[in-house]
Amino acid sequence: MRGLIESRLSDVVPSETTWPARLHEAQRHALLSPGKRFRPLLCVFIAQGGGIQGGADLDAAITTGCVAEMVHAASLILDDLPCMDDADLRRNQPTTHIAFDESTAILSATALLNRAFGVLARLDQVSSDRRVEMIDLLSYAVGSKGLIAGQMADLANTDQGATIAEIERLNTLKTGALFDFSVESAAILSGMHASQRAALKDFSYHLGLAFQLLDDVKDAVMSNAEAEKSVNRDIGKATILAIAGSDASKTKLKAYLDSATAALRRAELSNMDMLSAILDHQFAFLRT
Amino acid sequence: MRGLIESRLSDVVPSETTWPARLHEAQRHALLSPGKRFRPLLCVFIAQGGGIQGGADLDAAITTGCVAEMVHAASLILDDLPCMDDADLRRNQPTTHIAFDESTAILSATALLNRAFGVLARLDQVSSDRRVEMIDLLSYAVGSKGLIAGQMADLANTDQGATIAEIERLNTLKTGALFDFSVESAAILSGMHASQRAALKDFSYHLGLAFQLLDDVKDAVMSNAEAEKSVNRDIGKATILAIAGSDASKTKLKAYLDSATAALRRAELSNMDMLSAILDHQFAFLRT
Repeated sequence: MRGLIESRLSDVVPSETTWPARLHEAQRHALLSPGKRFRPLLCVFIAQGGGIQGGADLDAAITTGCVAEMVHAASLILDDLPCMDDADLRRNQPTTHIAFDESTAILSATALLNRAFGVLARLDQVSSDRRVEMIDLLSYAVGSKGLIAGQMADLANTDQGATIAEIERLNTLKTGALFDFSVESAAILSGMHASQRAALKDFSYHLGLAFQLLDDVKDAVMSNAEAEKSVNRDIGKATILAIAGSDASKTKLKAYLDSATAALRRAELSNMDMLSAILDHQFAFLRT
Repeated sequence: MRGLIESRLSDVVPSETTWPARLHEAQRHALLSPGKRFRPLLCVFIAQGGGIQGGADLDAAITTGCVAEMVHAASLILDDLPCMDDADLRRNQPTTHIAFDESTAILSATALLNRAFGVLARLDQVSSDRRVEMIDLLSYAVGSKGLIAGQMADLANTDQGATIAEIERLNTLKTGALFDFSVESAAILSGMHASQRAALKDFSYHLGLAFQLLDDVKDAVMSNAEAEKSVNRDIGKATILAIAGSDASKTKLKAYLDSATAALRRAELSNMDMLSAILDHQFAFLRT
């Protein structure tokens, strides 16, 4: 599945030789650099758990997962800019503004977000009603109650008196919102009923919190080489780790994962065992 | 109609007090600063010429026109950034990164583009098929064959041996693409037939060229106060004005307008007289 996703990611953006070549090189640099592809995998596996077997339906789930990855890549380009986190390294490669320049980085991020909507609009095998619903979901996940709000809040974040509840709210925006899109669009594509969708919303909420906390822990304890990106970007920021310390953070992370797993079980998907194994693998760091 | 558009523009983005307030203040600063609203007016008047009278249909045309203005505002925020045109003044006000800061400017531009898609997705009075078609059009107009490509090319633009044909291609991307969206979405909303749509495509192509050339002429001959933005941003860039000179540029501008008017006539809209009067007013500068 990861191979199918890599190949689809390469197909959803123009080639490096398409004019304007520099824009497309930068897009491909950001989108195709080695990543876990967790959001696309999540979308596809949830869709499979909802009954999608293969053919055009599976194809649509793969493409929709890649849309989440495009938006994720766009958000990383912007987060790494000098006026934001000012990071040089991402996925073990120079960040896009370092490998190219700031204006190219900003325009390639904008182009990735823009194309994400275009790709959803062109999912011909999916009904227009469902396409519109997914486009609305994506806009919500990215917008003033999602990724962008999370990034604004993160930039304003200092260690002055934030509570854990406030940090959780921030982490839900920064990470949970795009997980929500991946999971909910999988539910739409596989035609799940309302109670399954409610359970999956709870699942992605806790999964987003777990992911962001894992990221914060990695930022603090790993070297650049281990994390494959610029670390220590969180110094001076309020994180659960900074407030509660390392041991309490690991306990909290395990609690998030337990809640996520319980919610996933309530969704009664056909591939629960595989999904559990994937989560276990993803959070293997907890056992180190 | 301009009043209806101003009021709708204010409604399609969150209020200044909605969290995160700074993001929404910046969005409103960029979107609601005094502008001609040419793209929304174009969308609405073309839709009226195609038979839309009022009620929910007119309402959808107004909102769709505002979507074009949201994307236009987003593109201006980015164009004005220090790493792009580095402009301090726009619509007689400080540019967004000056009034706020760079990261807020970049995120508010991204949020405006993102919300533009969300607004189209939520046009409940329009069929899902038509919404998907307009979303696809918008993504095309903004993307690698539209606004973003035009901005990339503009940043790489020097006065080294560009031909007028090459500059026209650039101007079509920078300005024509969003005019195409405004005009074509009006055609979709009013259910025009293929020959009308083809004529309108030709109309918006020539209108885009005329607009950009007028902008270049203003950049060269007006003061900041007259143009209500930072001028002389084109020095060192290849423009038709730089290559052909002022008199030839005015002649060319008139030729573009004649072609636009002829194409508009072929579209056989019911309000041709009013549309002609609007173009005449917009390009009144030609008579000075």
